[in-house]
Amino acid sequence: MTDDRLGIWLVGAWGGVSTTVAVGLAALQEGLVDETGLVSALPRFAKLNLADWPQFVIGGHEIRQTDYVAEAQSLARLSGVFSTELLQGVENRLREFDQNVRDGSLLNVGKTIESFASTSTKKTKSESPKSTIDRICADLNEFRETHGLRHVIVVNAASTEPPLESDAKDWDWAKLSESLRKSKKSQIPASSIYAVAAMISECSYVNFTPSVGSDMPALCELALEQGVLHVGRDGKTGETLLKSVLAPMFADRHLNVMSWVGHNIFGNMDGKVLDDPINKANKVRSKDHLLTEILGYTPQTLVSIEFIESMADWKTAWDHIHFQGFLNTKMTMQFTWQGCDSLLAAPLVLDLVRLTEREWRRGKSGIMSHLSSFFKSPMGTDVAEFAGQYRQLLEWADEVEKTSAS
Amino acid sequence: MTDDRLGIWLVGAWGGVSTTVAVGLAALQEGLVDETGLVSALPRFAKLNLADWPQFVIGGHEIRQTDYVAEAQSLARLSGVFSTELLQGVENRLREFDQNVRDGSLLNVGKTIESFASTSTKKTKSESPKSTIDRICADLNEFRETHGLRHVIVVNAASTEPPLESDAKDWDWAKLSESLRKSKKSQIPASSIYAVAAMISECSYVNFTPSVGSDMPALCELALEQGVLHVGRDGKTGETLLKSVLAPMFADRHLNVMSWVGHNIFGNMDGKVLDDPINKANKVRSKDHLLTEILGYTPQTLVSIEFIESMADWKTAWDHIHFQGFLNTKMTMQFTWQGCDSLLAAPLVLDLVRLTEREWRRGKSGIMSHLSSFFKSPMGTDVAEFAGQYRQLLEWADEVEKTSAS
Amino acid sequence: MTDDRLGIWLVGAWGGVSTTVAVGLAALQEGLVDETGLVSALPRFAKLNLADWPQFVIGGHEIRQTDYVAEAQSLARLSGVFSTELLQGVENRLREFDQNVRDGSLLNVGKTIESFASTSTKKTKSESPKSTIDRICADLNEFRETHGLRHVIVVNAASTEPPLESDAKDWDWAKLSESLRKSKKSQIPASSIYAVAAMISECSYVNFTPSVGSDMPALCELALEQGVLHVGRDGKTGETLLKSVLAPMFADRHLNVMSWVGHNIFGNMDGKVLDDPINKANKVRSKDHLLTEILGYTPQTLVSIEFIESMADWKTAWDHIHFQGFLNTKMTMQFTWQGCDSLLAAPLVLDLVRLTEREWRRGKSGIMSHLSSFFKSPMGTDVAEFAGQYRQLLEWADEVEKTSAS
Amino acid sequence: MTDDRLGIWLVGAWGGVSTTVAVGLAALQEGLVDETGLVSALPRFAKLNLADWPQFVIGGHEIRQTDYVAEAQSLARLSGVFSTELLQGVENRLREFDQNVRDGSLLNVGKTIESFASTSTKKTKSESPKSTIDRICADLNEFRETHGLRHVIVVNAASTEPPLESDAKDWDWAKLSESLRKSKKSQIPASSIYAVAAMISECSYVNFTPSVGSDMPALCELALEQGVLHVGRDGKTGETLLKSVLAPMFADRHLNVMSWVGHNIFGNMDGKVLDDPINKANKVRSKDHLLTEILGYTPQTLVSIEFIESMADWKTAWDHIHFQGFLNTKMTMQFTWQGCDSLLAAPLVLDLVRLTEREWRRGKSGIMSHLSSFFKSPMGTDVAEFAGQYRQLLEWADEVEKTSAS
Repeated sequence: MTDDRLGIWLVGAWGGVSTTVAVGLAALQEGLVDETGLVSALPRFAKLNLADWPQFVIGGHEIRQTDYVAEAQSLARLSGVFSTELLQGVENRLREFDQNVRDGSLLNVGKTIESFASTSTKKTKSESPKSTIDRICADLNEFRETHGLRHVIVVNAASTEPPLESDAKDWDWAKLSESLRKSKKSQIPASSIYAVAAMISECSYVNFTPSVGSDMPALCELALEQGVLHVGRDGKTGETLLKSVLAPMFADRHLNVMSWVGHNIFGNMDGKVLDDPINKANKVRSKDHLLTEILGYTPQTLVSIEFIESMADWKTAWDHIHFQGFLNTKMTMQFTWQGCDSLLAAPLVLDLVRLTEREWRRGKSGIMSHLSSFFKSPMGTDVAEFAGQYRQLLEWADEVEKTSAS
Repeated sequence: MTDDRLGIWLVGAWGGVSTTVAVGLAALQEGLVDETGLVSALPRFAKLNLADWPQFVIGGHEIRQTDYVAEAQSLARLSGVFSTELLQGVENRLREFDQNVRDGSLLNVGKTIESFASTSTKKTKSESPKSTIDRICADLNEFRETHGLRHVIVVNAASTEPPLESDAKDWDWAKLSESLRKSKKSQIPASSIYAVAAMISECSYVNFTPSVGSDMPALCELALEQGVLHVGRDGKTGETLLKSVLAPMFADRHLNVMSWVGHNIFGNMDGKVLDDPINKANKVRSKDHLLTEILGYTPQTLVSIEFIESMADWKTAWDHIHFQGFLNTKMTMQFTWQGCDSLLAAPLVLDLVRLTEREWRRGKSGIMSHLSSFFKSPMGTDVAEFAGQYRQLLEWADEVEKTSAS
Repeated sequence: MTDDRLGIWLVGAWGGVSTTVAVGLAALQEGLVDETGLVSALPRFAKLNLADWPQFVIGGHEIRQTDYVAEAQSLARLSGVFSTELLQGVENRLREFDQNVRDGSLLNVGKTIESFASTSTKKTKSESPKSTIDRICADLNEFRETHGLRHVIVVNAASTEPPLESDAKDWDWAKLSESLRKSKKSQIPASSIYAVAAMISECSYVNFTPSVGSDMPALCELALEQGVLHVGRDGKTGETLLKSVLAPMFADRHLNVMSWVGHNIFGNMDGKVLDDPINKANKVRSKDHLLTEILGYTPQTLVSIEFIESMADWKTAWDHIHFQGFLNTKMTMQFTWQGCDSLLAAPLVLDLVRLTEREWRRGKSGIMSHLSSFFKSPMGTDVAEFAGQYRQLLEWADEVEKTSAS
Repeated sequence: MTDDRLGIWLVGAWGGVSTTVAVGLAALQEGLVDETGLVSALPRFAKLNLADWPQFVIGGHEIRQTDYVAEAQSLARLSGVFSTELLQGVENRLREFDQNVRDGSLLNVGKTIESFASTSTKKTKSESPKSTIDRICADLNEFRETHGLRHVIVVNAASTEPPLESDAKDWDWAKLSESLRKSKKSQIPASSIYAVAAMISECSYVNFTPSVGSDMPALCELALEQGVLHVGRDGKTGETLLKSVLAPMFADRHLNVMSWVGHNIFGNMDGKVLDDPINKANKVRSKDHLLTEILGYTPQTLVSIEFIESMADWKTAWDHIHFQGFLNTKMTMQFTWQGCDSLLAAPLVLDLVRLTEREWRRGKSGIMSHLSSFFKSPMGTDVAEFAGQYRQLLEWADEVEKTSAS
């Protein structure tokens, strides 16, 4: 089945999450690790006939100049992840993946992200939106043809962009495409430019970040028109995952959450970008809305995300939940979550790629709302409780099984 | 509707949970508090036409000599719960409830519980099982007749008994009833004797403790024969509630839980009883099995429950969850839960009474498996995840609504 | 000895700390409580012949309109402190203390504090510095004469002011006094105006807040000239106390603190004032400097103080200390501190008053550097470790004992 | 100065602590690491003219069959410590140290420790006490002569033995030595047999474990007679260190500690031994007494130490401190300590060796009470507060400096 090849195109290709995706995929292909952490590898999804790890090849866009081995070694050294044996075992495959990485786009990414750009990427700053899209499409097509790929899934794993304030987010595709074609400048952020290019190139698009990506009417329209799939937004890996798991308990038990305070500290590249208040605004927004959705009222909330260099990739969250029980008695729950960010995110990216490919193989297009459990701000659904979101996934799996059996 | 009266019969009537049930019910009847903490008061159950608070009257069995006001004041002083205003507002009702409390039974409750017994209760020690059952039936019938009650729900809220090792737990009702009728002694614990008497007296039975109660084939048989309802076992109020909420997340995300350590400290009467290792065995068993059920494998677990006097009714749990993610990376989640035990338990008792009465009004009998979300070791179901258990409750509510509408 | 009377003059007289000082002193005078939490009541200070509780009477300045009973009941209701019995037992004394409260000053206190001002206090806004000082002096003299007080200690327990940026903080007394006498306006904050008036009136001055108070060369000069004592700054009650206790351990063991993150949440009046970033700046500064002093290098630090209304007077701090040990192994210590702010602060205020009076009785004047263990930013000493600061107190006690014995 | 050689003789030579001592010393000798975590390397001890790392050579006794490289790799793999580069850089030195390891003794070590014994060590089980001592002395003398060592310090870093209940712990040296000479069996545990042999061989002795070691009148006598130094007992590395740092704060502030609960989990070899309740008794005793000494009263305490395999060498402690402040307000402090046990212990062993050698060079003998800050149950002093213990060390350093200058 390995001649039936599939492509993972990572935007932010040499970042922490993508590097871990690359290391992890290579390790799975070499048979060096088990499938712990991969949702799609659970027995309950065994009958879905998902793509096998050896079928995938990695490419991507990146604005910095580095390579997978260097980034993986840096992660290993700073964060104590990946054994030396593991890294040695995947080195060759990582060098092959490196060959498929191309210069990214700096359109509306904000000053902090720009400051990390390589010399060659900086040259693209004067590109018009149209040229950028053409360039990205060319990169994607080259990737597909060179490797003989049946389908390519573009995954946005780049740093968080500033929020999109323009009214372009309400445009339809006719209006947006005209603007992209004609204007020399655009307020559309890079994450959406990538989505446009992906869809035009008949690739599916997964937005693992809080950036806008394909979460606009225009792109929902384009996806249907092009017959491709898309989903997002912002992979749910730690504190927010716990909120979507714990908040329903308070709601179901009629316990009144008075305040929910969450402090996050971490020290990776993503942390450096979020240290810029403009980029951070997007992230905090993505972490904070679901309490109201789940509880049905708005407790006092506080979400902080702070860059603490010594933490490296280990994101530690402390949450303090103050609630009232019977006779208005005040009680407290606190938790600390000490998770390694890239190692939590990377398997979800691989899951999303596999699950997207499976849905594409069924001939579907548009938003994959059944993947809501993977995201902080899921597209196409109002369900905010993790258990309810996961049930959507299970129900989808049942349907796939049934329809493919018949 | 207040001439349609209902009885709550509390076994362990003056204990911390029951005292809080009494204070809470009285406060609700006086309109002194809102319904926070009461599951049955959530909007989603509004159409079930549940019984109103003023319909209920409280009675019970108790082995100690005290009264509601004294116990409530002691709870207030030691644990900082109940305002002075609240206690003043319910004092009259509490004194009325006191009139309905009768001497309990000491059959096989273990030495620690025996040591708390009042002089008059101690006199019952030589009673045969048959006499005890007759006495309890008489008490229940008197309660029903005196207050003109349409139905009485017996709730076991007494301290935890030692585990039942006898093979009597596998007997059918024929064999058990013969033994109870003929033997002078019995290994059947008090919690089950109360269940037998309740069912014979056509009362429903709710077991809020880890004791055996009605969780035996013989009593399941008797309940159906008598047309009464029953359910249990061990109210799920804190650490175990969280386990049933959090463990599914680890399972659903394919994160490998290597160890789950839980330490509980508290200082109320229940804590004193659990300081006896024989009684504690029952409790720890009840808290520990569900991880295997949810995860599908058995991580190393440790559950400690320790009596720390200064904590009074504030049960504090520290849980340390050590898990492996992708590429076998070890990560950690910790939580502390600072909950006031009686205030968490009491509203659930009131919920269970209301929900049992509703089901009885529909003419049902036997185990109420749809109440699984309230219990650590639910009867009549294998579902161990809180979200799945809660869905059972919602589905039951949908059915009740539908059938009562037609 | 109760005809030998002493005065405690509280600036911010009806605030949370002062109210607790008043309730506590009254309770001690009535014999309703023991001396837990009072440093000066430890056996090791028994021979110092400190003033007795019945000797003290309370007065003060306040900008809001309320009274002790209302404030104490509010604290009790929101924060679950003070039993109903205790409050009833001290009510008469609290009403007497109320008689001694006068309108405070709004000079340079910032907009947030101004917004709480009573109608009568607002009228003082146009006062010149000189008039304010004269008015305060008159209040202090009236207090002393009315109650026949041997000595009055003025304690600043008001909300935190914005930092003093003016160069007046470097002036000598000649220059400052001239400016205060002649200018219609002044940049000198209220806390320092109170200190000037206190010293002119021959009262001692204790600054329990991060505001400047007497921490200026000019006021150090004035104190010596007037023969009065003073000390400050910012009572050390929670997270910073722990820093001064824990950081020396890391230093002494040569463990390299890479980062120290501290998040504080609380919901009292002080919290509301600190929600104004201008006032908060002063506070954070006061909490953050001592790590460098103790460790000898500057780890990455983060201190947040956030107003979370539901917490009321319960200040909860979470600190995450990330350190390197041998072979550069990264390790972590975390703590949570759940302390009731006013109840931690009030006994220290009473201690400071007693210890100041004792020193004044010996005929001393100037800064009391031996009281460093009570303050976040102690005046007159470089010692930052709690143990070292406490030794200064013990050595002073030894000296007092020796000299008073001879 | 490297021809002035010194010996470190580790009892439990291939255990986790000793392996880390060996790796650490080798790394210091190779210049691969800095001196973080080493107390003796602090600037304040720079003038003491302590021995240099290259002067030391390692040997020891061990009951298991393994080697340093295997143990170090196992620690690295299970606990994520030691980089691959570091281990490669010290491999040769570790193999040299291996040459100096000899069979240990199984006298009264308890069944759990026995179960780990190698074939050759098992053969020594029938040895008489006298033969064991002779054998150990021969090993020590051979070590000294082979390497031309000026002084050898024997450090007990073996697993915790069962408590010594025999009255031999009160004997004088005459009685003990006669018994050891004549009896075929003895109740004296291995830790004390090593101490006897060390002293007879004119070596100094450091007891880093809770076992008895030299903490008996007979051995204090022998040490003085032989002119050697000794000290102990039980290295203070984590939770107890924090108790000795934090408890004084509660005492100094007159805060009433009602209960102090400490739960420890870890998964190394030491943990396996402590899983045997007999061995654990000794450990818990060593962790629990100091609160009474520091506070002057006995709060309710609980100390648990549990073996959780997944934790490996990472000892995590959760402590819950419940205390009363002013007006008997109950407050709480909690901490979690996530420390790598061997990495915390090893530098202290190296410090103790250096500081012992320095004292020996001054011609001193007997107990080194100034090293109290390193131990849970320090010998020769009543000071229990860490700050006070550390002051003893600083005062000793001042004295050494002064006397060596003159």
